[in-house]
Amino acid sequence: MTDKGAEMTETENELIRPAVSDEGFADIYDEDGHVRHDFLTQIGAAIADRDVLYLRQHVAKLHETELGHVIEAIQPDQRLALVRLMGADFDLTALTEVDEAIRMQIVDQMPNEQIAAAIGELDSDDAVYILEDLDDDDREEILAQLPFTERVRLRRALDYPESSAGRRMQTEFVAVPPFWTVGQTIDYMRDEEDLPESFTQIFVIDPTFKLLGSVNLDQILRTKRQVKIETIMRDTNHPISALMDQEEAAQLFEQYDLLSAAVVDENERLVGVLTIDDVVDVIQEEAEEDLLRLGGVGDEELSDSVRETSRSRIPWLAVNLVTAFLAASVIGVFEATIERIVALAILMPIVAGMGGNAGSQTMTVTVRALATRNLDIHNAFRVVRREAGVGLLNGLVFGLLIGLVAGLWFQDANIGGIIAAAMLINMMAAAIAGILIPLLLDRFGADPAVASAVFVTTVTDITGFLAFLGLATWWFM
Amino acid sequence: MTDKGAEMTETENELIRPAVSDEGFADIYDEDGHVRHDFLTQIGAAIADRDVLYLRQHVAKLHETELGHVIEAIQPDQRLALVRLMGADFDLTALTEVDEAIRMQIVDQMPNEQIAAAIGELDSDDAVYILEDLDDDDREEILAQLPFTERVRLRRALDYPESSAGRRMQTEFVAVPPFWTVGQTIDYMRDEEDLPESFTQIFVIDPTFKLLGSVNLDQILRTKRQVKIETIMRDTNHPISALMDQEEAAQLFEQYDLLSAAVVDENERLVGVLTIDDVVDVIQEEAEEDLLRLGGVGDEELSDSVRETSRSRIPWLAVNLVTAFLAASVIGVFEATIERIVALAILMPIVAGMGGNAGSQTMTVTVRALATRNLDIHNAFRVVRREAGVGLLNGLVFGLLIGLVAGLWFQDANIGGIIAAAMLINMMAAAIAGILIPLLLDRFGADPAVASAVFVTTVTDITGFLAFLGLATWWFM
Repeated sequence: MTDKGAEMTETENELIRPAVSDEGFADIYDEDGHVRHDFLTQIGAAIADRDVLYLRQHVAKLHETELGHVIEAIQPDQRLALVRLMGADFDLTALTEVDEAIRMQIVDQMPNEQIAAAIGELDSDDAVYILEDLDDDDREEILAQLPFTERVRLRRALDYPESSAGRRMQTEFVAVPPFWTVGQTIDYMRDEEDLPESFTQIFVIDPTFKLLGSVNLDQILRTKRQVKIETIMRDTNHPISALMDQEEAAQLFEQYDLLSAAVVDENERLVGVLTIDDVVDVIQEEAEEDLLRLGGVGDEELSDSVRETSRSRIPWLAVNLVTAFLAASVIGVFEATIERIVALAILMPIVAGMGGNAGSQTMTVTVRALATRNLDIHNAFRVVRREAGVGLLNGLVFGLLIGLVAGLWFQDANIGGIIAAAMLINMMAAAIAGILIPLLLDRFGADPAVASAVFVTTVTDITGFLAFLGLATWWFM
Repeated sequence: MTDKGAEMTETENELIRPAVSDEGFADIYDEDGHVRHDFLTQIGAAIADRDVLYLRQHVAKLHETELGHVIEAIQPDQRLALVRLMGADFDLTALTEVDEAIRMQIVDQMPNEQIAAAIGELDSDDAVYILEDLDDDDREEILAQLPFTERVRLRRALDYPESSAGRRMQTEFVAVPPFWTVGQTIDYMRDEEDLPESFTQIFVIDPTFKLLGSVNLDQILRTKRQVKIETIMRDTNHPISALMDQEEAAQLFEQYDLLSAAVVDENERLVGVLTIDDVVDVIQEEAEEDLLRLGGVGDEELSDSVRETSRSRIPWLAVNLVTAFLAASVIGVFEATIERIVALAILMPIVAGMGGNAGSQTMTVTVRALATRNLDIHNAFRVVRREAGVGLLNGLVFGLLIGLVAGLWFQDANIGGIIAAAMLINMMAAAIAGILIPLLLDRFGADPAVASAVFVTTVTDITGFLAFLGLATWWFM
């Protein structure tokens, strides 16, 4: 009770860090959210000393995500050693939390027996996540070592296409017939040993496994024992086809604030359940993809090698090279003008560059609005008109500004006037290209995030050089 | 049983579209996921005819998100008319699903009595979402019309800072003492009328409301009636301080795959619950923010006016203008060289532009890795080394390529050699700037997504012009 201010701050800090969980581990993160350095040093020492006891006490108890962070943070050569030393105590789920390259590196080198033994402990969606990265031979060998029902379940999920809801679903769920009472259902859950690790709703099915409806657990808890399930079930809580693309499924989750949803096969039979935690990953990946693609990068990982990274970035640079030469050839047309007035060469990158910046602003907004479905045929015209207006307004503002500065710099009102006019033209072109190019790409089924930037820069470069040098040639020559 | 193939495709299509929900509405979306045009036309006609019956039958039954989409899709002048015509049948939750500008436009013009009447029906987190956008007078008037307990609850959430967990939390929750049995708890939920609309866990508190733990509903359902809650509760399921920033809370949700988490005040007393659906919105907004900032756009909405949009984009363009003049002044230094060899003016944008593209690739990857906490002090050195390697490799590839093409174009091996060397230098500079600039900005507490692009382009423009024109001057003059 000495200094209340200081005390409160301490309590607050304590609450802001991830709290100590019920599994009893200490906080492994520093204040920036990275794994604490002394913890990593201790683990490194334990690996070097083959101190299995330490690892079992301090690492085996981590939450799967925390263990994933530890694996990413330690040195590459320590990773497999850690997995080997921990043996059966290693929670394979942690591998679903690490970067793909690291996962494959570890899984490829783990003995198939260890994987098979550990995979039996996982929820089916996590098991599939790990199995799908393996080559066919290893996968078959591991599946062959699993109990029959487990093998059938996993194979069913693996048979659905990559990025489908069926691939991401969990095949463990609770399903009851419609004529059961709430009391029977609760008694069943109390007696049954083989329930999913956690669940928030149960499904109602007919004898052929056809989905009839679902009931949220809170609904069961607030209903009297004698009430029949069919009277409280919800008809079809947005069943998701196993073949549906995972991004589309994620959109349904967002749209209807779902926590979990039934996954059904072509005959509307219940085959699994998709849960919000998997969907959150999909949503994040999707947003990340758009960001990386707009920046001209594909699906690269921080752990990729120099050669892999270089190769994945070359295509975009190559496409940009072609458009750069195109822009250069436009300048080439005005060689004679530049030879007479070198000031033009000095100023021309400003016109092209500012147009590029304005175009990328409009393009970014457009790509994002398309991704979130906020932009469609009904409001496209309104938005195009607005962007044209913004281009006109900003073209006037920056045209005047640049014209003034350039005119003073070169002590030539003509040059000031020409660059101002060119600037206005290019800002308008940037606005219209920035919105129409992504819209058209989307309309013709291409991903606007991938290709828009190249086309927009081509338009702003060429328009910038053409307008500026063209006006100058017309005026001076 | 005529044509099995055709029949299956039909079933599949049916499953891929959002299914008809238990509330009985038809599918309002077309295949692109936009609200169907004929449905919008019908609503428009009903509004024009003041056909309240139609609206009550077809619009009042929509899911809140669907109603939100409808509001966004109809004409601006129809929106308020729709809300007025629907009166008490209008589900205010829909307003939490629309763009901020549209929400404010509607709420500002709705009579305070209608808002007060409707807000009593909402979950507290949705109510706060709407109340926080109102000006102080309107908010006070609405709060004054609410029942006492409701008013206290909402005010408590509104007192927490914007973007805090306390502001986003729901103040309705189920809490029981630790000495209750599972049976008592279930009986309580069966009898109590005033439960939250939906929930997935219950909390355990002492008489002072101090949080002791939590129990997931599936755990309650699989436990015998006579078992005491304290024996099945989890100690502290990552309690979140009400003052914690919502982004930090979202990270805890992701990290521990939470569906909901207790929110506690400074004295560790339970004040509310944060749920995954609010967190999904936070995660999305965060990813969107990074994308928009990298593109040089701030918090703008599609519904902003030309003037608002223009004004919000001017600062970034202005900063870029300064750097563009800086780059131009570098060119100015080499005026004499360009005057003699105009080919340099034609080729110089290629060197600067390709460097800019390579720099933006590295920068995009770096900004994303920082945002997802995949990049920190421990692996920064490794990643910097990798990027430098990629810069070297791609510099060699594109240096050779551009050198060859430029040499052939101008029939001058000297020019080819000079542009190749300049290209290599600029690609290396781009790689190093692309990674070090975001890292340094992050280190000094600035948001790397906002400022990186300007600095990186400045480096690649200046290095590109300086290397190319400098080498040419040294060689030819």
